[in-house]
Amino acid sequence: MRDVHLGIIGLGNVGTGSLTILTENARQIAQKLGFRLVVSAVCSRTATSKTLPAGLDGALITEDWRDVIANPDVEIVAELIGGTTVAREVVEAAIAAGKSVVTANKELIALDGVALWRQASARGVLLAMEASVCGGIPVHGVLREGIAADRLEALYGILNGTSNYILSEIEQNNSEFNAVLAEAQRLGYAEADPTADIDGFDARSKLALLASLAFGVQLTPADIPTSGIRPITPVDFRYAAQVGCTIRLVCSAESTTEGLFVAVRPALIPKDAILASVRGAYNAVWARGAYGADTFYYGKGAGPNPTGVAVVSDLMRLARDLRSGAAARVSPFGFTEPALAQPRPIGEQHRAWYLRFRVHDRPGIIAALSAILAQHEISIDAVLQLPKEDWRNLPFVITVETTSGARVARALEQMSGLDFMVEPPLALPLEPGL
Amino acid sequence: MRDVHLGIIGLGNVGTGSLTILTENARQIAQKLGFRLVVSAVCSRTATSKTLPAGLDGALITEDWRDVIANPDVEIVAELIGGTTVAREVVEAAIAAGKSVVTANKELIALDGVALWRQASARGVLLAMEASVCGGIPVHGVLREGIAADRLEALYGILNGTSNYILSEIEQNNSEFNAVLAEAQRLGYAEADPTADIDGFDARSKLALLASLAFGVQLTPADIPTSGIRPITPVDFRYAAQVGCTIRLVCSAESTTEGLFVAVRPALIPKDAILASVRGAYNAVWARGAYGADTFYYGKGAGPNPTGVAVVSDLMRLARDLRSGAAARVSPFGFTEPALAQPRPIGEQHRAWYLRFRVHDRPGIIAALSAILAQHEISIDAVLQLPKEDWRNLPFVITVETTSGARVARALEQMSGLDFMVEPPLALPLEPGL
Repeated sequence: MRDVHLGIIGLGNVGTGSLTILTENARQIAQKLGFRLVVSAVCSRTATSKTLPAGLDGALITEDWRDVIANPDVEIVAELIGGTTVAREVVEAAIAAGKSVVTANKELIALDGVALWRQASARGVLLAMEASVCGGIPVHGVLREGIAADRLEALYGILNGTSNYILSEIEQNNSEFNAVLAEAQRLGYAEADPTADIDGFDARSKLALLASLAFGVQLTPADIPTSGIRPITPVDFRYAAQVGCTIRLVCSAESTTEGLFVAVRPALIPKDAILASVRGAYNAVWARGAYGADTFYYGKGAGPNPTGVAVVSDLMRLARDLRSGAAARVSPFGFTEPALAQPRPIGEQHRAWYLRFRVHDRPGIIAALSAILAQHEISIDAVLQLPKEDWRNLPFVITVETTSGARVARALEQMSGLDFMVEPPLALPLEPGL
Repeated sequence: MRDVHLGIIGLGNVGTGSLTILTENARQIAQKLGFRLVVSAVCSRTATSKTLPAGLDGALITEDWRDVIANPDVEIVAELIGGTTVAREVVEAAIAAGKSVVTANKELIALDGVALWRQASARGVLLAMEASVCGGIPVHGVLREGIAADRLEALYGILNGTSNYILSEIEQNNSEFNAVLAEAQRLGYAEADPTADIDGFDARSKLALLASLAFGVQLTPADIPTSGIRPITPVDFRYAAQVGCTIRLVCSAESTTEGLFVAVRPALIPKDAILASVRGAYNAVWARGAYGADTFYYGKGAGPNPTGVAVVSDLMRLARDLRSGAAARVSPFGFTEPALAQPRPIGEQHRAWYLRFRVHDRPGIIAALSAILAQHEISIDAVLQLPKEDWRNLPFVITVETTSGARVARALEQMSGLDFMVEPPLALPLEPGL
């Protein structure tokens, strides 16, 4: 069969990884496809000064992405520059020029993926986006086709490697958040501006995307209740361990008769759960289906080569579609009509809770707090008190039985005004853990 | 788009699960596809007496599989009867009649999958087989397309739920193999004739199939060195724990510069590895790629509904291919030309080893055994001796440093003749564990 010619736009981490695989692994790729993938054009702002891998002889190397799209040989364009401004221009221009598009861009797809896919469909070209979530884990394909027959009930993910690395380090070394973050930045595991990672916004875009594949809904990322890992302290891991748990930044989507609950937030999960064994910069997704029960997917969340595998596997898939004449054989979202949806208010979701207080110790504190909990009809499960360190800033924990988040929030609101509180209480839900 | 009409042949566990999903989940399936999957014909030896699910109005119910294939509406046939005689007839007849085929039949595909696929290609129809390995885990799709761009270096699997359940039970309850097997048979977790499961033959077929997807080779199952779990005793778990390990029936395929090593055998794996957290009737596959590093896939290995998800997801995939006009867009084996291959002799593979002896205790035993090990240039790592129970049948363990299996086998052969040996020594490799 005829070779398929590619244009690569962007030579950052993901672009470099993709190009490495396309050149180094070209022979096995051709053995799988029955034809070759040929890189015909590469665009990078620093392309001419970069050392490009061998095997690109004859390829157009340019600093203007328009040259790649204008190249008549190019059938599929890989948009690997990130962001939502130029990237959107690139994707729209490629589609308008009748080229199929592979993208690794989670922000763009989470915001406008369905609209871009409709543009592509109208123009008779393909759109693929495996690399946009969980770089090394082919979870798009799994949800879109692998377990397409199942009706999913819930999806839980650990989707941000930086947060997971930081939490793992706090747990293992009993270190303070700020120290671990600084060290992660020094090692290159966290960005200079770590907000997107540690405050949950990166994970939120990914959850929006996975929820669209799992449940056929189109969520606006800003509608997903999101909180990050800044309030988590070493003592939280010690208290969590007392109830057999660890703490992770959990992305959850739960389909119930009342609607879809989605959230990104630090949560307790059982220490012996497989989900808890996701350490460091790894990602994982756990899906629970009405028929297939639990399945679990694990791998590198990012990195040039793991994400490159996702990009190039998508290029192979679209190349197969093009050569077999299958225009738009499957929606990139699995569902043909992802419906705009509002998640249910997360306060309506019921969970058991871990409530951690920091107080200026004096008699009557437990009595005061338990009176407020009783007033809100919240049942105490346990009161946990590690050996004291500092009575002026004493951390202790109350775990409570399953109740709505809204009820817990009202009780905590009332507690915040108490004179012995050193800081506002921290509430973490107990999530299930496969 | 036009509905796709299906014929289901076989209403055992998998057939029943598939039919349940096709009827109960019909609405969501149509939302994903943009058209309906309609069951037009069902064959079962007991079809007329079976209670069929609602939603089959108008379907032909027959006891003769030829009626299903002869039905002009039927575009895809699901072969769900198992075995290799009638099943082969069914698949070949369906292909000859120009129908695409979905099968859950690991023996048939492991033996003749490539030949059947060539028949299908020649006739211009499709063949799919996701359900043939690891029922609930979409690992075929992952290897065939999801991480197709990667070049795999190794694949490890826990592929037999019955063996895994029995080993988990021996470990947790300190019970003898025979007692656990009897209980598993009583509970329906093990067959009346458990040979295929506990002696590794079921896992062997599955490994042959996964190796073809992972490495593009066509292995004859009988060429895969295979040993089962019968020799594993509770004391082995206690000794394994002393070196931080547990024991699982591990399917391994390792691509090296010397060739491909494949084996099905009980092995030690680190207790804190994710692979070790696969308990009970679950299956798991861990793949190590040159670019994507480690990915891990976990789910139910069998059962009507999990396997039904695999069958129906395949039906959806082929229906999409048919409606988008994509005849044979991808080889079901990932590679266009799976090459007939002989695995390397497993004795050439290097591993650290766990050697468990049962001896009639007397002075000089360690001296005798270590002399033989030294003679074969095998270095002792540790000698493990739990508190004695019975000096006439004393189990103890020697762990040795990395060396070839052939060398270990020669040393054990020589040891077997020693007069204090109560039974032949047991050698288990130490496998890595993600």
